[in-house]
Amino acid sequence: MKHGGDLTAAMARHGGDAADWLDLSTGINPRPWPIPDIAPAAWQRLPSQADETALYDAARQAYEVPDESGIVAAAGTQALIQWLPHLAAPGGVAIVGPTYAEHALAWRNAGRELVGIASLDDIPEQARHALVVSPNNPDGRIVEPETLRRAAAQLRRRGGWLVIDEAFADVDPSFTAAVLTPELPIVVLRSFGKFYGLAGVRLGFAIAGEVIARRIALALGPWSCSGPALRIGAAALRDRAWAVETRDELREQATRLDEVLCGGGLDIVGGTPLFRLARHPEAYRLHEMLARQRIWCRRFDWADDLLRFGLPGEAAGLDRLAAALAAPL
Amino acid sequence: MKHGGDLTAAMARHGGDAADWLDLSTGINPRPWPIPDIAPAAWQRLPSQADETALYDAARQAYEVPDESGIVAAAGTQALIQWLPHLAAPGGVAIVGPTYAEHALAWRNAGRELVGIASLDDIPEQARHALVVSPNNPDGRIVEPETLRRAAAQLRRRGGWLVIDEAFADVDPSFTAAVLTPELPIVVLRSFGKFYGLAGVRLGFAIAGEVIARRIALALGPWSCSGPALRIGAAALRDRAWAVETRDELREQATRLDEVLCGGGLDIVGGTPLFRLARHPEAYRLHEMLARQRIWCRRFDWADDLLRFGLPGEAAGLDRLAAALAAPL
Repeated sequence: MKHGGDLTAAMARHGGDAADWLDLSTGINPRPWPIPDIAPAAWQRLPSQADETALYDAARQAYEVPDESGIVAAAGTQALIQWLPHLAAPGGVAIVGPTYAEHALAWRNAGRELVGIASLDDIPEQARHALVVSPNNPDGRIVEPETLRRAAAQLRRRGGWLVIDEAFADVDPSFTAAVLTPELPIVVLRSFGKFYGLAGVRLGFAIAGEVIARRIALALGPWSCSGPALRIGAAALRDRAWAVETRDELREQATRLDEVLCGGGLDIVGGTPLFRLARHPEAYRLHEMLARQRIWCRRFDWADDLLRFGLPGEAAGLDRLAAALAAPL
Repeated sequence: MKHGGDLTAAMARHGGDAADWLDLSTGINPRPWPIPDIAPAAWQRLPSQADETALYDAARQAYEVPDESGIVAAAGTQALIQWLPHLAAPGGVAIVGPTYAEHALAWRNAGRELVGIASLDDIPEQARHALVVSPNNPDGRIVEPETLRRAAAQLRRRGGWLVIDEAFADVDPSFTAAVLTPELPIVVLRSFGKFYGLAGVRLGFAIAGEVIARRIALALGPWSCSGPALRIGAAALRDRAWAVETRDELREQATRLDEVLCGGGLDIVGGTPLFRLARHPEAYRLHEMLARQRIWCRRFDWADDLLRFGLPGEAAGLDRLAAALAAPL
């Protein structure tokens, strides 16, 4: 199973329906921003320029986007991940990993040469572009702005791009602003659905210098986001009180999850407030044991001692996880 | 103004707010399929394989897609229009025109050589691919299946594709099935939002042979449609009674619109049940006069004697249009 958040495979193998399962396989906030009623016109009409402008204004403020930078909305960050390898100048890409696997897939499918690297300090000569996820999924590693700018300056000399996927950066609003500099070829990706707990809305952003942003916008074409996505996004991103409160609340939830995992014999080795990376010497067997109890977490094909756990959202979920971990392996 | 359906520019120039305007600039059904309550999970979770399968099953039935053909959903046909020029084999494209302008824009932006042709019988040697909109927008011209297959067979010998945009084909469910043949390199595009009156949902389909469909699916990547779009699409496409009734109703509405336009001194020269193409010797002045009365229709930069009118939906709208057309030019 490649992705979290899809119980179809889990149910096919272990039975039950979605209501029976505790899905901890994603990094999506389990306490979503509350969606108000959607005006019928949002479904019926093509999204208007005014709708788009309202979203962009809200996103610029929420992500503290510098005035000199461009911003482009898409139907989920994944849509941008798919496009970037088709828009960047010819050449290979160095990807800091292990990380979210869809980046490598998209660049490979676009016929690009790939090289996996452990750090942005190791970009080899043959890579024109580089990509890093920060905070990284699954280990939560954050790359310092200075390192990012140094890598971007190096790639600029090759006519390349540095793509920074900030899918889990909402814990700190100044993330994007700290790395963007108009003269550097940086593309920042921001995901709406994870922090706001609304992954089904499909909304994400690319933030970059004007020239790169225009190229992305031209590729996406008009009406790339749904009418409801534009309205929900604009309203949620303007709701600063909810964001401030949610940042604190997610940290508290993560702490409680850590306690349960440690109590169950796992070591916390990384993560963000939206998910925890935990080590266990028999992670695969533990994954299977939890699945038999209809708890679904993430395992990785590149590490047999790691599991990733999303937040249960409710105290009952934490209790259920604690009880499940206490069962014999 | 390039597109219909966006009153932003109209309001900027002529004032009023959206509620003041009678928007006849689109080909979108003004009597939408009624959306039921959306389950919160559709917004909150990533769309699942099961959600996608349900949509595909419904779409295959509604569009009478042959079993041997593949089908791929996207966040609106426009998203597919943007991708196709990046996925087709290298070479130029012949576009049967005048037609919906976004096709030419997308192929040009992808660096493709373009040639405009009047009919699929005129595909020149240098064009590897061809594109036709059928029924055509704005004139409603329908290309016979035999002509389409002959053109596709010709392009197959060059390793090219024939793209058939059936955005307005819902008037007849057997449209797609009539042209698809597994051995021919045909890509059919179907739009959900127009016939179902839900353009803001962003949902469209590419239907093609398995190999081409797989290539498109790989380019789009996972979760390209929102959770609500998958559910609304599946439920609406399964609602055959609504579709049958709507086909009749749209034809009646179009007839009544024709009467008003003819009464206002215009000649009907084409269209589909979702929009009418009308001729008037002073179309630009008429467009301006209607705009001053806050009625927005489409004009074209390639013809100064044509206007396109969408359906008003309500009798009051027809009356308002009739009164406006009676004003001195």
